[in-house]
Amino acid sequence: MTREGHPDRAHAAALDAADPLAGFRARFVHSGDEHIYLDGNSLGRLPLATRERLHALVEEWGERLVAGWPDWIDAPARTGDLLAAAVLGAGPGEVVVTDSTTVNLYKLVNAALDARGEGALISDRDNFPTDRYVLEGIAAARGLELHLFATDPLAGPVSEDLAASAPGDVVVFSHVAYRSGALADMELITRAAHQTGATLIWDVSHSAGAVPVDLRAHGVELAVGCTYKYLNGGPGAPAFLYVAEALQAELRSPIWGWFAQSEQFAMDRAYEPVAGAGRFLAGTPAILQLAAVEEGVRLTAEARMDRIRAKSVALTELIVALHDAWLAPLGFTLGTPREPALRGSHVSLRHPAAWPITRALAAAGVTPDFRGPDSIRLGIAPLYTRFVDVYDAVDRLRGIVERGDHERVDASPARVT
Amino acid sequence: MTREGHPDRAHAAALDAADPLAGFRARFVHSGDEHIYLDGNSLGRLPLATRERLHALVEEWGERLVAGWPDWIDAPARTGDLLAAAVLGAGPGEVVVTDSTTVNLYKLVNAALDARGEGALISDRDNFPTDRYVLEGIAAARGLELHLFATDPLAGPVSEDLAASAPGDVVVFSHVAYRSGALADMELITRAAHQTGATLIWDVSHSAGAVPVDLRAHGVELAVGCTYKYLNGGPGAPAFLYVAEALQAELRSPIWGWFAQSEQFAMDRAYEPVAGAGRFLAGTPAILQLAAVEEGVRLTAEARMDRIRAKSVALTELIVALHDAWLAPLGFTLGTPREPALRGSHVSLRHPAAWPITRALAAAGVTPDFRGPDSIRLGIAPLYTRFVDVYDAVDRLRGIVERGDHERVDASPARVT
Repeated sequence: MTREGHPDRAHAAALDAADPLAGFRARFVHSGDEHIYLDGNSLGRLPLATRERLHALVEEWGERLVAGWPDWIDAPARTGDLLAAAVLGAGPGEVVVTDSTTVNLYKLVNAALDARGEGALISDRDNFPTDRYVLEGIAAARGLELHLFATDPLAGPVSEDLAASAPGDVVVFSHVAYRSGALADMELITRAAHQTGATLIWDVSHSAGAVPVDLRAHGVELAVGCTYKYLNGGPGAPAFLYVAEALQAELRSPIWGWFAQSEQFAMDRAYEPVAGAGRFLAGTPAILQLAAVEEGVRLTAEARMDRIRAKSVALTELIVALHDAWLAPLGFTLGTPREPALRGSHVSLRHPAAWPITRALAAAGVTPDFRGPDSIRLGIAPLYTRFVDVYDAVDRLRGIVERGDHERVDASPARVT
Repeated sequence: MTREGHPDRAHAAALDAADPLAGFRARFVHSGDEHIYLDGNSLGRLPLATRERLHALVEEWGERLVAGWPDWIDAPARTGDLLAAAVLGAGPGEVVVTDSTTVNLYKLVNAALDARGEGALISDRDNFPTDRYVLEGIAAARGLELHLFATDPLAGPVSEDLAASAPGDVVVFSHVAYRSGALADMELITRAAHQTGATLIWDVSHSAGAVPVDLRAHGVELAVGCTYKYLNGGPGAPAFLYVAEALQAELRSPIWGWFAQSEQFAMDRAYEPVAGAGRFLAGTPAILQLAAVEEGVRLTAEARMDRIRAKSVALTELIVALHDAWLAPLGFTLGTPREPALRGSHVSLRHPAAWPITRALAAAGVTPDFRGPDSIRLGIAPLYTRFVDVYDAVDRLRGIVERGDHERVDASPARVT
């Protein structure tokens, strides 16, 4: 610590030296002109093992052709089981990796409505856009009410938001809010849903691989999530869905496809889906990108979620401390909960000039991301983000605003993913 | 020709020597212990350009990370436009490459029902299983009638099959039948649908890249198809969907997702899909596998569909001639139309012992595929299948059955894709 009471760079370097996960950084590709990459919450880095695996799998396609299918065909279930055990606190047969988060959410919402009666659809206005669009579309198609309520961005949805819900309602919440990073209380909110009889679907896109997720322990019935963020599955990697074992017999996908069919290659039978979450498969899965997901999940499994979370908290604590010391006096406010237990793995720094500052920060060799209207998100991927990265990034951010660099950048319209 | 009246190997070799597409074979990966691969109708070979592109794109992910998205984000539309022009006879903005054939068919059937009233769902019993399952599921969900009628396998669906259809009905036919290879008359059948007012959706999975498809010229309104067969997109490559320009404003996907949203990154607006077939996108597209599709389609574009079709016909003609000379006396029957204009790019050879013969053929260095109950399919991929390949394959097939090799193989249960 410095005499001013905030961490100095030597302190950050000491934290790196003591970091049990420090070795994982070298397991990822880093580019030649290295930016400080704080956007792993949008697209994770490329693991070396994934690069090798993809090269090998491309060769395997070339060499084995259709003879490869017996090894490939189980990839959605195999990768799902690995993810279930290492990341989601779920059991075998409860998770498959397939399709996109959007399509998977569509399947689960419809399955719940079909099985339990058509109540209202419920979410919060700050939920990730594609989740809201899916609900809008289903509400329009079925003539259902859609309730999108406002939340305190620094808290996200809370169990009281479910008080008025009823059996037949389907509620979709994100475990970590994509803007503020607020971490919802999965246990309390899930319990509230059990009490009202509503079906709750968790979107764990912004927590899977960064925050422990205990679907079984918390009695979660249904969940979806993304693999290209903290799980490092690559651009457009297939997403996952979770169906608790107790619900599997009750629920059916609205999209009946041959990869869910029992005896898939007995081609003359009527549709009869397999047991397990595999009944939510549809068409032929993206085999190359599934292999990338498998490698990403393996790396996370090896690092262990408890250690990942501990490092994530320490890193976001460092950002908060530096914010308080350096940024608050420059007009920033913290757009993320101050209490570590209430946030995920990114910190949003709000400033009226957030977009030009984001551009200036990129020019200064730091990649954050921007979410309108006024948030700079610093994403922490504990497998490869170092304490000195965070220190240097916030230091450069401070310098930019102190000098007014952001008033001189080209802040042409944003296109941010 | 031999004195017996059938082609001999020298004739096949002469056809190869005169083949304007012969050079394309060297543009694909061939394995060390080379099989004669006659299963490109199931999974196409790996183009060298695709291997390079995938390696480069994996590096691009590693190096550019989120900065790659501006180049990646248009891949579904860009690849769709290329496919539209080179393969499908469609216009810009009418095709996107995304999701699976199953999910795309689900989207289009529901869109048609929503826009035009809920009639009956119609297809043939011999249609590809996942197409039937999609229709079964939608019929169950909406309480609609599903008519699956029998066709003559050597003809496939014909325009008369539509006589009883009515406005609001949705009909799904395959352009080429996956078992028999029968090529439906797209023009006549589409005209019949226009006359009855039914909405017809073509599945061109087994024709795209092997048989010219003229969606616009034939007034086709909607189509879906696969890219991992003749288009060589790789295992689980994303599929495509086509929406004729005139229908685009009228139709909406049932799955509302952020990749169809106008101003995708203005995150606070209600759903308002873009114009064009892009409104049928849903979640984040599989960027790596899309690049493989793009390379595969480029190769097909370079070869040109007219030349591909001419070679395909010549190759299937050779199989038919050899069947008549060698196989018919051994108990085979032709499971594919004899008239070249009525078949696609594979020939089905029927035999009561088809499965053990398939196994023996594999042991003899030929990869065909098997479709129950009794068909050995020999798939012709004109970009890399040679006339001598076909000659040698049928010659080995003859030898196997003459010697009774198939009575001595391990014909354990099939698992075929």
